[in-house]
Amino acid sequence: MHDSAGILLTLFILFVASQVGGEIAQRLRLPAVVGEIAAGCAIGPSALGWLSAPDIAAGTPLDVLAEIGVILLLFSVGLETRLDDLKRVGASAFLVGVLGVLVPFGLGALWAHGSGFDWIRSMFVAAAFVATSAGITARVLQELGVLQRQEARIILGAAVIDDILAMLLLGVVSSLQGGGSVDVGSLVGTLLGAIGFVAVIGWGGTRIMRRGSGWLEKPRSRMSPLTIVLALCLGLAFLSMKFHLAAIIGAFLAGMIASETRQRHQLEEQTAPLLAFLTPFFFVVTGAKVNLAELGSVDALIMLAVVTAIAVVSKLAGGFLGALSIGRRGATIVGFGMVPRGEVGVVIASLGLAAGVFDERIYAVIVAMSLLTAMITPPVLSLLLRDRASGPDTP
Amino acid sequence: MHDSAGILLTLFILFVASQVGGEIAQRLRLPAVVGEIAAGCAIGPSALGWLSAPDIAAGTPLDVLAEIGVILLLFSVGLETRLDDLKRVGASAFLVGVLGVLVPFGLGALWAHGSGFDWIRSMFVAAAFVATSAGITARVLQELGVLQRQEARIILGAAVIDDILAMLLLGVVSSLQGGGSVDVGSLVGTLLGAIGFVAVIGWGGTRIMRRGSGWLEKPRSRMSPLTIVLALCLGLAFLSMKFHLAAIIGAFLAGMIASETRQRHQLEEQTAPLLAFLTPFFFVVTGAKVNLAELGSVDALIMLAVVTAIAVVSKLAGGFLGALSIGRRGATIVGFGMVPRGEVGVVIASLGLAAGVFDERIYAVIVAMSLLTAMITPPVLSLLLRDRASGPDTP
Repeated sequence: MHDSAGILLTLFILFVASQVGGEIAQRLRLPAVVGEIAAGCAIGPSALGWLSAPDIAAGTPLDVLAEIGVILLLFSVGLETRLDDLKRVGASAFLVGVLGVLVPFGLGALWAHGSGFDWIRSMFVAAAFVATSAGITARVLQELGVLQRQEARIILGAAVIDDILAMLLLGVVSSLQGGGSVDVGSLVGTLLGAIGFVAVIGWGGTRIMRRGSGWLEKPRSRMSPLTIVLALCLGLAFLSMKFHLAAIIGAFLAGMIASETRQRHQLEEQTAPLLAFLTPFFFVVTGAKVNLAELGSVDALIMLAVVTAIAVVSKLAGGFLGALSIGRRGATIVGFGMVPRGEVGVVIASLGLAAGVFDERIYAVIVAMSLLTAMITPPVLSLLLRDRASGPDTP
Repeated sequence: MHDSAGILLTLFILFVASQVGGEIAQRLRLPAVVGEIAAGCAIGPSALGWLSAPDIAAGTPLDVLAEIGVILLLFSVGLETRLDDLKRVGASAFLVGVLGVLVPFGLGALWAHGSGFDWIRSMFVAAAFVATSAGITARVLQELGVLQRQEARIILGAAVIDDILAMLLLGVVSSLQGGGSVDVGSLVGTLLGAIGFVAVIGWGGTRIMRRGSGWLEKPRSRMSPLTIVLALCLGLAFLSMKFHLAAIIGAFLAGMIASETRQRHQLEEQTAPLLAFLTPFFFVVTGAKVNLAELGSVDALIMLAVVTAIAVVSKLAGGFLGALSIGRRGATIVGFGMVPRGEVGVVIASLGLAAGVFDERIYAVIVAMSLLTAMITPPVLSLLLRDRASGPDTP
């Protein structure tokens, strides 16, 4: 029983670092999540090295804990989201999702081609500009207690659409890069599968739960409503990956289904300690993945600045245009809410590196861009939303 | 992001299996934990194979989740235990701990020598008879809501002493087996270190917390009392391993320290969802580790029956004699409470296999014995305690 001391020490360091980072960020009037990501950077392999690269590689205990953490986070966000509320912003969310994919993809491809990549490689690089990481925005919205606001709902709805499109795009780009032709039939199949999954689970699941949540209350079973919805959350997270979507989409849908139960408030209360314990692992591990060493040269830093600027501006523009119907201020909030790329950009960059499309430097730049967008967004969003908190609100 | 689907599926299967197993056990009027362990057996590598052996090996994500689960379990048990209550049963607990180690070690060594092992190997085998796994008993006591009873406190106190002695014994036996002489000085040092750790943390920690828990309430910090005590729990679990004790001892002490705060009841409520989500991993993984295939022969089954009988009788006798001062009935409960070996026996058996002291069969027998004792205990304990629930109680 003495071989797990190392893992316990790592868990302890990681958890304490997240708390200290969060505390410092809040004293600097930044969202806690910025501090948690920065703490990850600080203790990660490229700075203090208290977490080593093998500690946080895919499939390690820390990586799985991080995954569970972000799944529970999106579950809890779903728990605060009713399907009816999402429907009301459906059109805007759709537009934001579509433009928020097309504009970054277009600008990203242009920049990459301009930097000397051929068109096919450029499209691969551009794909890394696309996918929004809903986890980081969701956490900031939750921290500020504004999940009920119109902008928040548009962002969450758009994140689902964004993920479906990004999945499709990655499919196209991977096929092209693999030298093959794009199998339109199979892509359409995948797309319809993903849309069908979200529609059936989101619409059907909430309807069933709305009618049938009485049975959750019956005392005949030792299974509490909490354990039942947690099982649902893990199950849908898995299923959503089978439909080529991120696990967090399934978790979000599970939370939305659970939000239709009568035990909704009890579930929210019970989920809070799970979040407090497990989500820090996600943010610290996200931060720890930045390889600061690859960014040591002036060239690399300039490239990073350009790439990050394109990533921010393109997503902001797409989101802003898509949400213009709710007014400029709201559209700006939505636009910034879509900016963070977080772990999704990291994953695409890893695929590119493995496929030999990217070299070490552009890999590091894209990973750093993903995380920079994740670190820039929370303070901006928090400023925009706090500023508006005193102003008029839309139900 | 698509490579973690397998892990999510495993988590889902494991979690659902634990709930189904627990539910079935309760309908059969058995403690839920028996069902969870049995579910682990059923889905484990040697039966259905839904969990493979590499899935649950040491250091894998599932193994770490299981470890976190049992740590949080013992933390929550500590949270329901006040130092003053433990002190009141100190003498009995000490006696139970000591006799509960000596009697099984003696009988185990005699049996092993009788079966043809030389004395030094016999002592190694006997060491696997010794260490009580407090996790399983603690869960049963918690499920039945009897953690406040005198017997429960004696068992918990004795489990700490038991762990210190078992650690010492394993040190002696390993040195002897390694062919070396026993370095008495270093063993005494280790022993004093472990006792010192428990005494300083248990006594000092609770005193500091009793005086100073006011600062936990101050709203100036975003760190909640929950995150602070969780950090304490991880930290002490690690430290306790550094003092050659099981991680759960440190977690138990952390819980006991937290039980001195004013936020005690709030913490108990917040810990419950963490337990609901994470402890099932411990019990299912424990069950999954039984290799049913090695027990296919009649010889092996007879050996298992004999070894299990010795393990149960010796621990029962030791515990009973030690606790006789509280009456026969109470002493019987304490005796049975000390019976489960659980994962500790498994660890010693693994060490024995690695050192070449055990062959595959005696390894499987000792692992199966450890888990059998873990499965036998809950129903017996539950019967004894339910039976007595209507009778007179001691504060």
